[in-house]
This record gives sequence, structure tokens and C-alpha cells, in this order.
Amino acid sequence: MKFTISKSEFIKGLNIVSRAISTKTTIPILTGLKIIATNQSLILTGSDADISIETTIKASNPDNLLAVESEGAIVLPARFFTEIVKKLPEDTLTIEITDNFQTVITSGSASFTINGLDANNYPHLPEIDSSNSLPIAGDVLKQIISETIVAVSNQESRPILTGVHFTMDNENILAVATDSHRLSQRKVAMKQPFEHTYDFVLPGKSLSELSKMIDDSKDDILLSVTENQALFVIGETLFYSRLLEGNYPDTSRLIPDSFDTRVSFEASSLLATVERASLLSHESRNNVIKMIINPEDNSVTIYGNSPDVGVVQENIEPISLEGNQLEISFNPDYMKDALRSLSQTAINVDFTSALRPFTLMPTEDGESFVQLITPIRTF
Amino acid sequence: MKFTISKSEFIKGLNIVSRAISTKTTIPILTGLKIIATNQSLILTGSDADISIETTIKASNPDNLLAVESEGAIVLPARFFTEIVKKLPEDTLTIEITDNFQTVITSGSASFTINGLDANNYPHLPEIDSSNSLPIAGDVLKQIISETIVAVSNQESRPILTGVHFTMDNENILAVATDSHRLSQRKVAMKQPFEHTYDFVLPGKSLSELSKMIDDSKDDILLSVTENQALFVIGETLFYSRLLEGNYPDTSRLIPDSFDTRVSFEASSLLATVERASLLSHESRNNVIKMIINPEDNSVTIYGNSPDVGVVQENIEPISLEGNQLEISFNPDYMKDALRSLSQTAINVDFTSALRPFTLMPTEDGESFVQLITPIRTF
Repeated sequence: MKFTISKSEFIKGLNIVSRAISTKTTIPILTGLKIIATNQSLILTGSDADISIETTIKASNPDNLLAVESEGAIVLPARFFTEIVKKLPEDTLTIEITDNFQTVITSGSASFTINGLDANNYPHLPEIDSSNSLPIAGDVLKQIISETIVAVSNQESRPILTGVHFTMDNENILAVATDSHRLSQRKVAMKQPFEHTYDFVLPGKSLSELSKMIDDSKDDILLSVTENQALFVIGETLFYSRLLEGNYPDTSRLIPDSFDTRVSFEASSLLATVERASLLSHESRNNVIKMIINPEDNSVTIYGNSPDVGVVQENIEPISLEGNQLEISFNPDYMKDALRSLSQTAINVDFTSALRPFTLMPTEDGESFVQLITPIRTF
Repeated sequence: MKFTISKSEFIKGLNIVSRAISTKTTIPILTGLKIIATNQSLILTGSDADISIETTIKASNPDNLLAVESEGAIVLPARFFTEIVKKLPEDTLTIEITDNFQTVITSGSASFTINGLDANNYPHLPEIDSSNSLPIAGDVLKQIISETIVAVSNQESRPILTGVHFTMDNENILAVATDSHRLSQRKVAMKQPFEHTYDFVLPGKSLSELSKMIDDSKDDILLSVTENQALFVIGETLFYSRLLEGNYPDTSRLIPDSFDTRVSFEASSLLATVERASLLSHESRNNVIKMIINPEDNSVTIYGNSPDVGVVQENIEPISLEGNQLEISFNPDYMKDALRSLSQTAINVDFTSALRPFTLMPTEDGESFVQLITPIRTF
């Protein structure tokens, strides 16, 4: 194997596949990245067994300055190799494999010789039939992820809750996450009818990495799903993730369909108030703040209290307020996460009673996005 | 005590004194910051017993929007109080002490009540006579610090080496630091004759914090020194540091006054080459790289070798080369630190022999700044 390539374009590719490479893997060869050189392209692969990423650098794109002199494949230590490439002196570099997987990296007058591994020992990526793939606009997918991932559980006691549950039918994409204290649900209409149905749970960690790989363009990403794997095709890059096994709990009945008290807020001013109150609640053992809603004088007051440190009290002016008087306590961090994931400016907060979950929804198009928070009993 | 102040100007003051405040202190009251309100000004103080910082916010400066309604003093939990102030909703805030050192912070509709401590229990700052103070331009002091601090020892086995040794006579400021493997020495001529002499060792940690407080202006900083304290006056801010006790070793004879081999380099290209070679040396147990200087063909080659991982070799073109053939090994990190602290573009590296310390000096004005590195015996 011998090829020359643009340093900057090569680094872009290395950064993409490095997202999947962990130094903590129990499979030593997975600390490496695989490079395959063919006459037309370079294929880079990284994997941590849960996530695998493959990206192609094509010789036909003149920016890549890719010239493959002889084909071949190698696995190189990912972190160390990437550090070397980033430090090389010239705008291009040449990589050549000599005997015993020794790999010579040359750029200008600098010459590195590092020990590689036999690419035949690198695990095979899953084979996924992409004939039934579903196109999703990149910006929409990115938004769905950011809106639901906040509610994913990070407790391994119920592994299925560490993922986001996707259900896709002819018309809608429905994504739900819950850690059993709060829930986030997003519904998006398909651009065009999709003739298959999908029902799967993707690990939160995979979605978080996937999200970083998507720019804000509306370019379509192609999704294919098998029994235990999902494949996202993003331009020249393939992103594979294993699915979580097991049945996701039925969340469809958790969201109340009526309310006794509804308060509308500017999301940003409610967030600022809750952030201030949480400064105090974070200092106490119980991370709880209290909201008192008084329809008589159209007032909402937020309290935080930490006996050792002090108290905070703030009135926040609602846009509107209807229904019954209510005093409710909750974890301010759940409220902060929910408010930050909302890109809308005005929201409705709907309450049933002090001990029943309450919802946050955008004032406009509220059906499509619901955040649910379970209150905390303080008496 | 009751006063109103501009939030942004107050935050600037809090950030300044917070540099001295550590959460790890063994003296509980030092986790707090002291506020004294007088009719003319607010005085903020932070300290970790080694470093103390006091800054004054004057009512006479209209930007401060400072209005003191009643005088007084309080100690407030530094980190927590600063977090609260940063999150306040309006551009100004009011602070009022009520009974039992309870402190009420109000801004807009937000109201915090936090527990303060009696300011009478806060340690007194050292009293320093500043009539013999030495003016040093801020940018010069900042440069002296950055050039010498790299060679300060971080080993507590010889505490005196964890500081920088300053000697000031009528004409010069001399600053030296060494960790016994390398040494950095900077000499600066006084702008005007100074009639006293100073000889003291300032802790590296103090200098590092002091440096962050100095902007790049040429405004004078006033230095006063007592037996065990130094005071730097920077505008409205006083920076106190304890001095290290003990005798600093005599370093005046360590710097060789002749050389057998002299190589001139572009500092930036030597740095880039050493950085590349250190990628490999960092992977091996001995963090060593080798430089081979060959006057016959005017060549300099740098080698790094880590048996498990690979080898690196690079030719670097010197600006000039005179003297004898030499093969010398050293810790690349010392070389990197030395080269990064040099703001000059061209440097001379002067060698005596493979086992004797060698020096890096700016090609121009070499006398004023010397970095010395001890080589490593590899045979």
C-alpha cells in the first residue's frame, strides 16, 4: 500500500472515524483505525463495537489530492497516528507499508516509521440492506436528537431506558425518551409517505455521537434498520450503531390529556429564574425548588431553600395564567434541561395537581413536542 | 451595610479577588471573600494565606454606579456568592446586611438571602511600607515571568526551587529559575537607577496568578518587598505574596562562557521538529530525543525512538553551524518549554560537549536571556 493525500482532508477523515474509537476498549485492535487504499479511494474505519464509522475519501475529488500508487490495507494506532498526522510539516503526506506492517509516514523532511497491524484481523462491519432506507433531513434528525436525549437515563439498572425509542409509521416519526422521572416526546411528520414501519431503541451515546456528525444543512440522511443494527448514511460517511434489546415501556398513556392549571411563560425568562433558584437548591441535599401559582393576583413565585446557605425567592410574570391555585415542588435540573431543549420562545406549562406529572409544550404546535416532569413530594 | 452597584463592575472585582481564593484551604473563613463598604468605595479581599488580593471599587468612578447607603463589612462564601451575582437579572444589584450577618442580595424581582460571616474574624493582610517601591512596566514584568516560570521546579523536595529568584541592584533586574535539570535566566535593565537592592524568591504559583492579572499595557506596577512578603500594586488592586524562605543556590557559574559547537535555528521550525520527535519519545519510558550535528555537510538531524511504537527522523536546516561534530540527547519537553518562552525568531544553541549543559539564547541581545538544558546520558 502506498498513497499520497492532502493533510487537511486526511485529518478531516481521521477526526470523523475517531469519534467511534475508544481507548477503553477490551478488544485491542479496536484502538486502531483501519485504512483501505483502492485505486479510486481511501476508506477509513473506526469502531468501539457499539458504534462503527466508515468514511470514504475519493480520488475523484481534486481537493483530496489523493494518489494511490499501490492498493492495500493496514490498522494503525488511532490516537497516536492522528497526532503524528496533525503535526506533519507539509500540506501533503505519503504513507507506505513496508515489511511486517511497518508503516512509513513522510512529509517534507520528516519521516516516521510506526508499527501497524494486519487489517485482516479487524472485525467486519455489519451488513445492512439499505434498499428500504428512510430519508430524514439532517437538521430535523439533529433537532429530534437534541430534544429527546435530555430525558435519556444514565442508569444501567434499566438498560432499555438509556436509549431513545423511535417509532416510524407511514406518516410520522415518533421519538420518546424517559428516565422514569421525566419524559421527552417529539413527533415529526414525514416529508413523503414511507411504506415500511420501524420500531427500535437507539443508545443515547450513539445518538450523541451521531448528532455531532450532522451539520445544520437540510441534506437527507438515509436510515436503514435491521434486527439489531441501525445505519445512517451521511454523505460519504456510514454511521453504524447497535440497537438496544428489549421492549421499551409503553409511554403513550403517561402524557395527561387535560389540565387544571395552565401557565404560559417566556421560555428564556422561566429558564433564568429556575437557574437562579437552582443555585441554592444545589447546595442542599434535596435538589428541589417550589413554584407557587396564584390565579387571584396572576402571580407565579419560585422559591429555593438550603438551610445552611440561604433562601431565594423570585416573582416571574406569566404571559397568561388560567385554572386553580397550585403549589408544586420539582427538581430544577429537569426543568432546565427541558427548557434548554425547547427552541420555541413561548411555552405552556400544564398542571393537574401537586403530585401529578406536569408538561411543558411550545405554545404553538404543542402537540409535536412534549416534555413531562414528575414533581417531588415535599410534605 | 447597604450599597447598590453595577453588576458588571462588581463581577470584575469579584473575579480579581477570586484568584486568591481556594476551596482547599484549611482556614474555613478563607473560602469567603471580604467586602468592606465605606462612603467612598467598596474594598474586596480574597486570600489563601500565601496570596492575598485586595481591590477597590471607587464611588467616584461613575461606571461603578456605586452608592453606599450605610457602611459596614461582611464575609460571604466566595464561589457561591459570585455564582449568584453572575446570574442576577438586572444591571445593578443591592446588598444589605440584616441581623446575624444575614445578607440580602436584590436585583429586579429576584431576592437572595444568604448567611455571611463576621468580617472581624477575617485575617489581617500584611502591612508593607511602600515608600521604597520599585516601578516595573507591566509588560516587562509579564515577560520576565513567562520566560522564567517554565524552569521552576514542581517538586516539593527542595522548596526553594519552586520559586523564581529575583535580584535587583541599581541597574538591573535579574530573574532566575531552575529545577536542577534546566535553568532560565532573564536580565532587564532598569528604566531609571533604583537606590535599593532586593534579593528574594517568589513562589512560582504566585507569579503565575500575578501574571494573569497584568494586561499587556506598559503601565507601571509598583513592587515593595519586606523580609517575608512582596506587594505588587496594579492600578486599584494590591497583590500580596509570601516569599520563599531559605537561600537560593548560586546559579551564576552554571552558564558556560564558551562553546565548541554553535547552531543557529529559526526558533519556530526547531520547535515544530522537536514537537514531532516528542510524539514518539512520549510513548517510551525514557522521554529522550537525539540531535546529531554534522558540520561537514552543514546538517542537523533529530531522532526519536520508541521500540514498541516506532521511530522518527527529521533533518532540520540550520541558519548557520560552526564548531565540532556532536551527538547529544535530551528531554524534548525541556526544549519545547524553552523555545515556547522565547519570543525571538532566531536563536543560537551553544554546546560544549555531549554531557555538558547547553544553552539557547536569542541571536540578538543574547546576554539578556539564557535558557540552559542538561543533556541525558544515553550510553
